[in-house]
This record gives sequence, structure tokens and C-alpha cells, in this order.
Amino acid sequence: MQLGMIGLGRMGANIVRRIVRDGHSAVGHERHQGHIDELAAELGDSFRGSTDLKEFVGMLDAPRVVWVMIPAGATGAAIDELADLLEPGDTIIDGGNSRYHEDIKRSKALAPKGIHYLDVGTSGGVFGLERGFCLMIGGEDEQVRRLEPLFKSIAPGVDAAPRTPGRTGEPTPSEQGWLHCGPAGAGHFVKMVHNGIEYGAMSAYAEGLNILKHADMGADHGGEHSAEETPLERPEYYQYKLDIPEITEVWRRGSVVASWLLDLTAGALFADPNLDSFSGRVSDSGEGRWTIDAAIDTAVPVPVLSAALFQRFSSRGEAEYADKMLSAMRKAFGGHIELPK
Amino acid sequence: MQLGMIGLGRMGANIVRRIVRDGHSAVGHERHQGHIDELAAELGDSFRGSTDLKEFVGMLDAPRVVWVMIPAGATGAAIDELADLLEPGDTIIDGGNSRYHEDIKRSKALAPKGIHYLDVGTSGGVFGLERGFCLMIGGEDEQVRRLEPLFKSIAPGVDAAPRTPGRTGEPTPSEQGWLHCGPAGAGHFVKMVHNGIEYGAMSAYAEGLNILKHADMGADHGGEHSAEETPLERPEYYQYKLDIPEITEVWRRGSVVASWLLDLTAGALFADPNLDSFSGRVSDSGEGRWTIDAAIDTAVPVPVLSAALFQRFSSRGEAEYADKMLSAMRKAFGGHIELPK
Amino acid sequence: MQLGMIGLGRMGANIVRRIVRDGHSAVGHERHQGHIDELAAELGDSFRGSTDLKEFVGMLDAPRVVWVMIPAGATGAAIDELADLLEPGDTIIDGGNSRYHEDIKRSKALAPKGIHYLDVGTSGGVFGLERGFCLMIGGEDEQVRRLEPLFKSIAPGVDAAPRTPGRTGEPTPSEQGWLHCGPAGAGHFVKMVHNGIEYGAMSAYAEGLNILKHADMGADHGGEHSAEETPLERPEYYQYKLDIPEITEVWRRGSVVASWLLDLTAGALFADPNLDSFSGRVSDSGEGRWTIDAAIDTAVPVPVLSAALFQRFSSRGEAEYADKMLSAMRKAFGGHIELPK
Amino acid sequence: MQLGMIGLGRMGANIVRRIVRDGHSAVGHERHQGHIDELAAELGDSFRGSTDLKEFVGMLDAPRVVWVMIPAGATGAAIDELADLLEPGDTIIDGGNSRYHEDIKRSKALAPKGIHYLDVGTSGGVFGLERGFCLMIGGEDEQVRRLEPLFKSIAPGVDAAPRTPGRTGEPTPSEQGWLHCGPAGAGHFVKMVHNGIEYGAMSAYAEGLNILKHADMGADHGGEHSAEETPLERPEYYQYKLDIPEITEVWRRGSVVASWLLDLTAGALFADPNLDSFSGRVSDSGEGRWTIDAAIDTAVPVPVLSAALFQRFSSRGEAEYADKMLSAMRKAFGGHIELPK
Repeated sequence: MQLGMIGLGRMGANIVRRIVRDGHSAVGHERHQGHIDELAAELGDSFRGSTDLKEFVGMLDAPRVVWVMIPAGATGAAIDELADLLEPGDTIIDGGNSRYHEDIKRSKALAPKGIHYLDVGTSGGVFGLERGFCLMIGGEDEQVRRLEPLFKSIAPGVDAAPRTPGRTGEPTPSEQGWLHCGPAGAGHFVKMVHNGIEYGAMSAYAEGLNILKHADMGADHGGEHSAEETPLERPEYYQYKLDIPEITEVWRRGSVVASWLLDLTAGALFADPNLDSFSGRVSDSGEGRWTIDAAIDTAVPVPVLSAALFQRFSSRGEAEYADKMLSAMRKAFGGHIELPK
Repeated sequence: MQLGMIGLGRMGANIVRRIVRDGHSAVGHERHQGHIDELAAELGDSFRGSTDLKEFVGMLDAPRVVWVMIPAGATGAAIDELADLLEPGDTIIDGGNSRYHEDIKRSKALAPKGIHYLDVGTSGGVFGLERGFCLMIGGEDEQVRRLEPLFKSIAPGVDAAPRTPGRTGEPTPSEQGWLHCGPAGAGHFVKMVHNGIEYGAMSAYAEGLNILKHADMGADHGGEHSAEETPLERPEYYQYKLDIPEITEVWRRGSVVASWLLDLTAGALFADPNLDSFSGRVSDSGEGRWTIDAAIDTAVPVPVLSAALFQRFSSRGEAEYADKMLSAMRKAFGGHIELPK
Repeated sequence: MQLGMIGLGRMGANIVRRIVRDGHSAVGHERHQGHIDELAAELGDSFRGSTDLKEFVGMLDAPRVVWVMIPAGATGAAIDELADLLEPGDTIIDGGNSRYHEDIKRSKALAPKGIHYLDVGTSGGVFGLERGFCLMIGGEDEQVRRLEPLFKSIAPGVDAAPRTPGRTGEPTPSEQGWLHCGPAGAGHFVKMVHNGIEYGAMSAYAEGLNILKHADMGADHGGEHSAEETPLERPEYYQYKLDIPEITEVWRRGSVVASWLLDLTAGALFADPNLDSFSGRVSDSGEGRWTIDAAIDTAVPVPVLSAALFQRFSSRGEAEYADKMLSAMRKAFGGHIELPK
Repeated sequence: MQLGMIGLGRMGANIVRRIVRDGHSAVGHERHQGHIDELAAELGDSFRGSTDLKEFVGMLDAPRVVWVMIPAGATGAAIDELADLLEPGDTIIDGGNSRYHEDIKRSKALAPKGIHYLDVGTSGGVFGLERGFCLMIGGEDEQVRRLEPLFKSIAPGVDAAPRTPGRTGEPTPSEQGWLHCGPAGAGHFVKMVHNGIEYGAMSAYAEGLNILKHADMGADHGGEHSAEETPLERPEYYQYKLDIPEITEVWRRGSVVASWLLDLTAGALFADPNLDSFSGRVSDSGEGRWTIDAAIDTAVPVPVLSAALFQRFSSRGEAEYADKMLSAMRKAFGGHIELPK
């Protein structure tokens, strides 16, 4: 099959590479001619591209399939512009991190023009080229079926993990790493929750490792606390200088918390054992927030996922006013004077 | 009655003042002769004191009542020293912030010597002199009954709040502001949970006011966010420059969140509207931690109280390593570069 | 002044009573003639009313002031219907619990018709008649100034609480219990956060009291735990049978956690000491959710307020599927068998 | 080498199997002769055992190595009894889930007798036989070195996971799945935090999947809510009937949340798609609690890990009194009547 790709950043380019490897061809669109040329040099005849959107559309065979893989903020405008150039029967795929609300609106808006729309939540990050991308897909059955060959090439394939006990015979799409989750928006909905879980799991590791980091507190700080701070009651229990890079490594094999995130964490700690290259200002990029929003809409308690999100806000100093307020109250009722920060 | 007071800091001195006002007398012990002299000058014949513990004990009429009102860290040693000088029938009161575990141990240790022991959780802070102190008492019935006249003088009295509907006749001790909660440790247990609640309620206000503080985000920051941070989706909803000192003031009358803490908060904000005199490094002094400990021991879910405690830890930078870990993971799987802090 | 009131439920009727007491007059609109007649019998010449909206509008003197005090779900339609009957210069007040987004939309929609709009977040509940209502107001300066006499009558007045130290001279509106918070929506925004804080403070008390409730665990349950549940490590520390109604009473005077919520809690526990009349299914009515929403929009960490909201969801069984999932995982990796529920 | 094993339950027996497979021999002790006979029949000459502790000790070659693998509650007594039968130079290993405090005490108590002590936190659960056990070890260097051949056989080995980028040459112990973490208690400390992380990660998945479960709320429940519960504001966004077993399967390959826990979750959902065999009463077995304890001692904020623990408490009904209190307050200030549970 042929795939049109708008956006040849890391994710877009790697998706193109994976399908070309599998015998498909691709046409790319990007602002920078250089990116297009580089990819063409690498992939040969299977890839062409244009910085001009109209020309790009012209290079595609009808019924066209155009995958949009650009930052969420720019996706809406790009799809609008693209839709004006497409014809009935063509399909637009939003593979970025749009909010699923947008998918519902867009698919409705495109329907009268006869343009199909799929939302494909795409996980895999910088490792997608080798590891394959996990695809969570929303939209019409017929379109998903039509594009199955592409999804198969982009997804990791069944060999990427041992089969779940009890699953036999021809591997299902889910076992290959791609899934038609439901109608428009279902793909991004599932991807959104995936990222919400990711935030929670990341914080679980980060908090636990922070406890390990403090395990020498009895050795370092015993007795140094001021009257305003609680002294360590049992310093004899906090005398461990733990080697956190080695601990994350040992957990990778045989333990209950083994995971791909842990693999990456062990790698990051091996490369930078004290994390000196980081300051700890943690961004968040939408899905974590929307996950909590969806939970609140549907009255689902998410204390863990929300705590993870709020920790990111706090890491960026957003609790400062609240903290000052606490200090102001403590001074007001107890005369407590703040220690210098 | 006569009360011996060890520790003439703000709390100890104000307790002495309240009982002397009510016709009792007091004997004080303190390291600094100056503090004793000042209080004696203020209170006249009803107060004497000594910097020498033995002399102090000698000034008391048997059966002696000695209230220890010093920092929790020093209380144990002071009680040991005191116990050696007392006689069977005397009573020691720990009015500080000891962990209730200590009360159970101490009352057992003192019993063979015939020395009685009461733990009196004392709330009221710097306002206790005028407002009265709320007393939560643990220990033997007989001793509590014996010292009732003192507790009555120290506590606020029934007029400090409207009577609870349905409560009529002679006000109970609880309505006067003091309560015999149970055997040894019960007073400090109840005081401990009181402080745990205090942490939670303080954070409830602080978090809410922080939202009010950010209500102008659409006016100030709309569009300025980097690609790594989620932009404000609906800036039109965050255009309010709210006057937080005035808002805390208006809530003091008629609203559901009216409270003494709110009174203090409104006062603090009136005096320092932007809280410029605070940096937001919030101490914690034991009871909040022990409250969570007790909850965990007894399997009581305390998501709110624990979140309040952890926020204090975070305000002191204790999440830093965890935050760096999150940034390291984000870089590892997504290539995300940290924004400068 | 004259006030039109749509909705003569508890809140609406009590607002009418308070203004009539102060010499104003009122016109009411309600579906039930009976409610109108009762209020008319009580208030005499100062109150009239009609079950017919058009007739009701006809009873009002221009420029009319109509306060809408009905459930949030019905407010939008009622205001639309009302607006068709009003004239330029008239003012509509939404005193209910609308989301502030609606205020921004409505005030814009009404402006071309020359109809003014105020949103008035109203706190006070069933006690508003005697205690006064705390009013948080959004809208145009001029309208707020015009209606000041009504706000003064509805609000508690400065005597409802001691003045904040440093505040002298003529009491400000905030000291009287009403405040012009900002433009359209600002009143409901502040009321929303007020309720968010209310949720957090309520949970702080509830969690703390639950710890007190479990303080006898060592006496009751020591040793009865199964191998699958952690036994109580130190039963000697959990031997207290605490009298929770008395404890809430004692905290009302002199303690740091004294508050109106605590007054009510002590009253509820005096009337029903074991809370036998409750099952613990806790509703939530919108503002708590919107508060978290606003926090997430503006990146404000609210771990305490969100934990309080999620606890309400959990109380209604909404965590059940997640809990089953945890049990399924525990069985999968550890062979742990669930204890019967 | 030869290993003595006290406790031939699933974990103990599988450890014995793994070392025997690698050419070591084992001696077992158990209450039930049947278990010993079964294992002897399976393992042939390499395994013997006795129900009599003294006889068991007699079967071991000095210097003896005895691994104790029984429930945490029984470990202390078993070690005391064992220590009386051992000789200087022998080594006791606690491979169970003891609190690390105990290790520090025990190693000190055994030192004067010349008996060595190692604590070995052991993760792997029911899959340990095939997957290998992850071993976190505390104690003296020399003893750890001496027993390295056994640890190697029990641990998964380096092939159990791809090597971390940058790690080359002879695999370290951590890469083989075992690690000497530090002095006495360090092994159980690291295992404790491992389990704390496990709780957090489990809840992250469980909460996220619960959101997926509720994604059809707009289809099912739209409009059915009572006045006391917030209606679903945007039912059009919650129309998805998601296939959660398939979604957990698709995430296993290529996604950021791929993990061993997810593998197990997908397996559990494939076997029981609606989790009908579970009621959702989730036990906790000590380590999760101790993790929070350690965090509080060292002032480490752990909002995610604690929320996960508290959710387990709530799943067992432990929030009930707090929930009733919330309902009582709501009735008191707002007249809100509880909906039936």
C-alpha cells in the first residue's frame, strides 16, 4: 500500500521507515526540504515527498491515505487545509496526541465530504523504529480493515512479547500490537488513558527510588534538625547507602516490577548515576490532564493517577502560593517562624 | 489549687496566667531567672519560681501537681529528673506534644513509685491566654477529678461558643473545653489526630486559595507556553484578578468554610496581602506524621491527611530526586528535554 | 428596594424573609400556589407572588431585579424564558450553583438586550435565615452598587464574627459578608472554590474521626487477622474506646480546628452518636468537580481537594472494578486468594 | 553447594528445585512429611529432609547454610529455635517478608554466637521456578561472596532481559538478578520499597482500566442521575464500549506501559474478562505499609504510593465511618438526604 505522511519528525519518519521496510511505499510532506531529501536518500524509490501540500496530495493514489503526525496544537489547522484538497473516499489519520473530543468533531465534520477519518493513538516514542509502535485505533470498521496492512507493518508484531497463556491460533490484531478500539475518538481515548497510567507508574518508581535515596538519612542528618522540623526518630534504621542504579538493574529480572519503564530507568541511571543532568522540572503534555478530566466526568476515583499529575505541577513550583499560605497560618496560630529555604 | 509549671515559654506562662486569674497559685521552673522574675512581677504573690529544680519541688505543697510544658524532645529527660524528686501521691502532667506511646510507657514506669501521670494535649497556640486552651486529657479518673478546678480555669469555658443544639443543663466538661478522653496516652492520641486534621484543613484552604491565585492565568500567560507544557485550553475562563484577602474575609461570615483557621488566614492576608514575608518552606512537627502512622497501623484510609503531610515535605524540596527521575524517564522514552527550572 | 424571587424553596424563601425583615419588599414566583400563599401569610403586605411568570414580571417595578434560586439544571431554561419578558435596564441574578462558564455565556447573551446579569454564589445552607448568607458576586460594578441595599440585608453583617485585627473604621462589604469578586462568573468561580475547600475540610475531619473510631483495634481485633491481612503490630497502642461525640464537642472551644463545620459535626454526633441513620453513600454536586477541573486547567496541584472528591466517588462503589483488578493481579503473580467481602 | 531450606511451600520448594537443577543439593524441613516425600521423589538423591528440626540440622554439612522461607509472622520464632541448634560459622538466611528492622536486631543478636545472618528479599511469586527469583540481599560481604553460587542458581540470569545499553563485559550480579544491597536489613529494605512501588504501579493500571470501564457511561446512564448526584455533562463523549482484555493485550507490545504486571493483567482478563470471580476486597501484606512508614520517617513525599495503599484499605470497607460522617455533615448544613446504598 501507499501512505502519505504529513510530518517527518522522529515519529513520522520512523513510521515511514517501518512500512517501507515491509514493502509499502510512502509520500511525505514537511516544511523542510532537507528532511524530505534525507529520507529519500535513505529509502530510495519507495519514498518521495514535497514541501507543498497540494503537490503532496497530487503524488498520492486515490483513494488516498494521509497520516498526520505533527504536534497536537497544529493538527486541527493541518487537517482543515488537507481536507480541502482531498476527495470523497480518501482517509485522514490523526496519529498525534489530539484530545479525543476533537476526533468526534472532526469525523462528523468530514463525513459530509465523504472523507474518512481515523484516530490512531501511537505509543512507542524514540524506540518505535526498532520496537514497533503500539496502535490504538478509532473510527469506521471498513477503513480500519482497508488499512490493516499498514497497521501490521507499523505495529511490533506478535513476537515482541510471549503470548498470553490461553491465546492460541492465529494471533489477533491486539497480539500484533494494534487494535481497533471503537468508533471515532476511541483510539485517542485509549491512548489518553494509557498515558494517564504511564504518569502513575512513572511516579510509583520515582517515589520508591526517592525513599531508597533517603535511606542514609540516619547517617547523614541525625540530630541536625531544627526544633521546627521533626527529628529522625530511629536513625539506626536509616544507615544505608544504596546503589540505586544497581537496584533498578536487579529489578529488571525476575521481580514483580519489571517493565519497559524500568528498563529505561536503569539505562538512564547507568548513564547518569546521580541524575546530575536533570533539574527536576517535569512537563506534562495534555493526556494526563484529560485522563483525570474523564475520570471526574464519569465519577471514577483516581487518587494515584491524579497524585502523579499534581506532582508534576508541584515540580514546576506551582504549589508555591499554597505553601506560603501554610506558613502564614502556622505563624498566625503558633508563632512558628519559617526556616530559610 | 496550686500548680507547678516547668517551662515558662508562651504556652506555660499563659497557662499560669489563666489559673492565677481564677484565684489559683503557681510555682514556676525555668532556666532563665529573668523569665521567672518577669512573671512574678506581673502576677504578684500568686506566683513564685526557681531555676533550681529541687528548690522548685520544695516550693510545692504535697500532693504536688507539676505540669511539664517544654519541647517534646526534652520532655522525657525532664520527667525522669523530676520523678526522682517527687513523692508518692504527686502528679506529673505532660502538656507538650509527646507521642502518646511515651505516655503509656511513662505512666507504667511511674506507677511503682506511686507517682501519677496525666497526658494533656493542649491546643490554643499563641491565642490561648485570651481564648483559653482546649485540653485533651489521658490518665486515671481520680487524678483528672482532683485537678478539675485547674482544667476549668485553663479551658475556654462554655461561653466560648454557642451550645450545641440539644445540649442543655449543666455544661459538660467537653462543653467547657476540656475532656478526659481515656487512660494514659488518650489525651495525646486525640491531640495527635487533632493536629492531623489541622494539617488537612490547612491544606484545603491553601490549595483552594492557590486556585483563586491562578484565576488570571488566561490574561497573563495565554499562549506563552512551550511545546513541552500543556497550553491553557480555554483562556477565556481564566481572566479573573481576584482579591484573595477580601475573599477570605467574606467567607468568615455565613459561609460553610468559616473557621478559626480562616479567621487567622484572613488576618495574615490583611497584614501581608501577597505573603511576601514567606518563602513557603513548611515545617511539620511530629503529630501529622504520627497520625498517618496510626492510620496505617489500623488500616484507616487517610488520603487527605497524608496528602497534606506530603505537601509539606515537598515544600522543603524533598521530592527533588523523584522529580529528576521523572525527567530522566521522559527523556529516555520520548526524547523530551527538560525546560530550565 | 423590591426584589423578584424565582424559586421559593428553603434558600429562596429565606432570602425573601431576610430582605422583608429589613424593610424591603418581594415578589415571588413558584409552581406551587401553596408556597406563595404561605409566605404571603407570614410576611403580609411586603410579599406578593404568582405562579404565572408573566404575571410575576408584571408585578415588578422597572428597572426590575429578579433573583433566580432554583436547581442548577433548571436555571438556564428559566433565565431564557425570563429574559424574553424583561426590558432593557432590568437585572437577572443567578443565585444558584451554576458553573461559572454559564455566567460568562449568559451575560454576553443578555447584553445586547440591555439586560444586566449578576452571578451570586450563595453559601449558608439551611441556616441562612438566622445566620445570613455569604454572597460572592460577579458582574458589572454599577449593578452591584445599585443592589447593595439588598446584599446588605441578605448577608450576615459585620457582627457575625469578630473583626479581623487591623481592620477598623467603616466595615467593608467583605466584612459584612458580601463581596463583588469581579466580572461575570467571578462570583460563581469563588463559590466553586469555596465548595472545593469545603469538600477538603470535611474529609479532613472525617478521616481524623475515623482514626479515633479505630483506636480500639488492639482491644477488639488483635490476632484475628488472616494470613492475607497485615496483623496489628502493636496492639497495646490501640486500646482506646474514644467518645467521638464528646471529642468533637471539646474541639469546638479553644482548639485550632474549631469551625462551623465542626459545630455541625458535633451537633450531628450528639443527635446520632453512632451515625446509625447514615449508610455512607456521599453525593457530590458539581462544584467539587469543577474545582479540580479549574486546578488542572491552570496547573495548580490540589492533592487534598482531589482526594476528598475521589473519596466521595469511592463511597458510592465506583472503585469496584479497579479493586477487582488489583485482586486479579495479586492472584496472578502471587497466587493470593481473595478473602470473602 | 548444599542448602538447608526451612519451609517447602511454593517459594521454598521452587528455590530448592532451581538449585538442584544447577547441580547443588538441598535438605528440607517442613511440618508435613508428605511435602518432603513429594519433593524427594521429584528431585532424587539431591534432596533429603526431615520434619524434625534437630534431625534436619544434623543432615547439613558445616558450615551450614539454612534458608528460612515461611510466613513473616512465624519467622522470628523459627530463627530463634534454629539458632540454638547451629554452630559458629553457620549462616541463617531469612528469605521471607520480614520487616528490615527485625534483620538489624537479629543479626546483632546472632553475632555473639558466631552465627551469620543474611536477609534476602525474594521477588518472583508463583512464576519463580521458570522465571527465576530476583534476590535483594543484606548482610556481611564475606557471607554473600560465599553463597554466590546459590544466588546465581536461584536468580534469573542475564538472559532474562536485554542488557542495558552501555553495560558490556562480564555481567554484574545485578544483571544476573541478584544484588548485595548493603549491611543487615538492606535486602529487606530494598524488597520493601519494591513492593511499595508494586502497589503504586498496580493501582495505576487498575485506575486507568476503571476509566476505560466507565467510558460507556453516556450510553448507559445519561439522564438517570438524581438531583443529588452530578449529571454527566457531556454524554456524547462517553459512548464507548471498550474491550478491556484486548486493550491490555495491545499495550503489551510497543507501548510505554508494557510490563510484567501488564502481562499478568492481560492474562487474568483473558481468562475472566469481566473479573466475575473477584469481589474486590484487596489485602495488603505489610511491605506497602512499611514503605510509607519509611517515607514518613525520612520526609519523602509519596502521594502515589500512599494513595495505592489507602485504596486497599477502602476496598475492605475501612472508610465507612468517614463516609457516614460526610453524609452527616452534608445533612447538617445543607439538608441533603442520602441516597440509598
